[in-house]
Amino acid sequence: MTETADFPTDPERPAGWLPPDEITRLRGLLPLVYVDAVPVRVDDSGDVIAVGLLLRVTREGVMSRALVSGRVMYHERVRDALVRHIEKDLGPVALPQIPAAPQPFTVAEYFPTPGVTPYHDPRQHAVSLAYVVPVLGDCRPQHDAIDLAWLTPEEACAEQVQVEMNGGQGVLLRQAMAHVGRLA
Amino acid sequence: MTETADFPTDPERPAGWLPPDEITRLRGLLPLVYVDAVPVRVDDSGDVIAVGLLLRVTREGVMSRALVSGRVMYHERVRDALVRHIEKDLGPVALPQIPAAPQPFTVAEYFPTPGVTPYHDPRQHAVSLAYVVPVLGDCRPQHDAIDLAWLTPEEACAEQVQVEMNGGQGVLLRQAMAHVGRLA
Amino acid sequence: MTETADFPTDPERPAGWLPPDEITRLRGLLPLVYVDAVPVRVDDSGDVIAVGLLLRVTREGVMSRALVSGRVMYHERVRDALVRHIEKDLGPVALPQIPAAPQPFTVAEYFPTPGVTPYHDPRQHAVSLAYVVPVLGDCRPQHDAIDLAWLTPEEACAEQVQVEMNGGQGVLLRQAMAHVGRLA
Amino acid sequence: MTETADFPTDPERPAGWLPPDEITRLRGLLPLVYVDAVPVRVDDSGDVIAVGLLLRVTREGVMSRALVSGRVMYHERVRDALVRHIEKDLGPVALPQIPAAPQPFTVAEYFPTPGVTPYHDPRQHAVSLAYVVPVLGDCRPQHDAIDLAWLTPEEACAEQVQVEMNGGQGVLLRQAMAHVGRLA
Repeated sequence: MTETADFPTDPERPAGWLPPDEITRLRGLLPLVYVDAVPVRVDDSGDVIAVGLLLRVTREGVMSRALVSGRVMYHERVRDALVRHIEKDLGPVALPQIPAAPQPFTVAEYFPTPGVTPYHDPRQHAVSLAYVVPVLGDCRPQHDAIDLAWLTPEEACAEQVQVEMNGGQGVLLRQAMAHVGRLA
Repeated sequence: MTETADFPTDPERPAGWLPPDEITRLRGLLPLVYVDAVPVRVDDSGDVIAVGLLLRVTREGVMSRALVSGRVMYHERVRDALVRHIEKDLGPVALPQIPAAPQPFTVAEYFPTPGVTPYHDPRQHAVSLAYVVPVLGDCRPQHDAIDLAWLTPEEACAEQVQVEMNGGQGVLLRQAMAHVGRLA
Repeated sequence: MTETADFPTDPERPAGWLPPDEITRLRGLLPLVYVDAVPVRVDDSGDVIAVGLLLRVTREGVMSRALVSGRVMYHERVRDALVRHIEKDLGPVALPQIPAAPQPFTVAEYFPTPGVTPYHDPRQHAVSLAYVVPVLGDCRPQHDAIDLAWLTPEEACAEQVQVEMNGGQGVLLRQAMAHVGRLA
Repeated sequence: MTETADFPTDPERPAGWLPPDEITRLRGLLPLVYVDAVPVRVDDSGDVIAVGLLLRVTREGVMSRALVSGRVMYHERVRDALVRHIEKDLGPVALPQIPAAPQPFTVAEYFPTPGVTPYHDPRQHAVSLAYVVPVLGDCRPQHDAIDLAWLTPEEACAEQVQVEMNGGQGVLLRQAMAHVGRLA
């Protein structure tokens, strides 16, 4: 859950953004609403043929792979948060096919304490609605991501990739593959 | 559940098709696997803005509205049956976005006896997997359909439209709208 | 979304609870995580035979019907929040059968501004995970509820009941009935 | 998908049952409707703590583990088929909590040809609606099952158990664990 930025550097913050010290304080008071998106390429029958994972370098200098993930802001619909975070991470022409239904395939509960659930975020308690999102357009990693790798469902479930994912996102990715019938 | 044709007039039937008298006999022996598709137009956030309903004239000469619906054949995947029936009813360039996940939003059990479930088909017992399917391309009614009407979710749920749907498809349509958060 | 109490009168607040003025302030800053539960009675086949609705008197003195609803607290799992709110509203021996899967049947987004979604809460922006929860035990209305009425799915969907529900919970209730195949 | 019996030895077959030679012939003509049930024990919060697997000896004399699985008969509702097959395999006092909603967590498409999907049944093409079903009562293996083993989700996902499952039911079991948030 390496959300790139909670607010832009622009001095006029849009509604819904919070100053960094405020969001830090809130993170210890109540669960935050998040979305997780698993970007996929599908064939004409809707079958998943590839999964997009962001490659990042953590603050500790370790390479890691991540899903598209981020906070839902005040007065923002979940579907709009999905669009915003996908554009933020995959660029403006990814053409995400946001699900028509708000029902997520699962809810990932990131706890600051490890072990309560399979998901962990040392910064906060986040309740994340997780969706598989087909993208039809051109995807380019943005901001802090150094690459976007397209893997087959089998590769995405492999131990080698799983160990490079943090906070339980490897489990969440495999749950997504289970949901689309491509669990390896 | 007015499936246009169980097999084409082409003398060489593809695998999976059955002669009409055989399918008639089978309909009284065991439940058939069906798919129901609710074709929708969505905006950039995935929100449903219109629902496509086929306009047909029943054998009794009554105008009726219908979803895309049809049988899954032997050795055919559910997602391929969805593609086939949508192309059959909406034409070859409808560009349906078949869901990545096989999980239907509901299962409609059409019984030959009315009242067992909300769905009824005097010909057969059909177990139908129901999906909401966004279409991106150009849709044109095929075969026996005389029109394809795009209605808003509100219009689709209205009594006036509901009474023109048969076999419980009006209920199924409203269930679809409930699933996408647009129940009126 | 008439949550009975955000913290108990007990001077020592358990972890996760917030003082009233703090929660009021937070409600204007970011979306809160909520759960909505539709308590149902089912028969041996799992078919819903009755829906439990709480009868309350609003601050304005108007009778209203409500689902079980409430906030998810810091460091609380969604399933534990469901248990807590059901016990809070239906009493300690309701024996709720909390769903094994965290996938809600829908996500209800209550906005402080009416019309953005079908759900509205003037106090806050709440993102609510909605579940149908069969209860096996004895249910008794608690706290501010003056009655708990068990209605058939048909009664629950009827206009007469729908108008007594606030903030879009009538829609949410019908979505629940659609999900269990009992939309009237 | 080792369905114990398609019809009882009783000379008067109830409606919906078919003679063995007829069902054999039908299996090559069209897809059959099936249900798969993953029996689980849950705690008071609905969290899965154990999964029940049937232990059987295949015709080839190999030990295998299986889910509860079987055909939906003519004029039988899916939820009644679930009750029937669970009682058939786990006994009459298993007290299964059949899901209120007909939406399965996935659809397993068993093909006679291996490799089309992750599921395989050499006898037939079966389209199986898969459900996680909590059981509250006393479970005893019936008929051809020699044992019913309760495993933790972690044990059920382990390689050692997975290799003892046939026809892709190991994958289906892990999909079920993914759905309930207990994928190991």
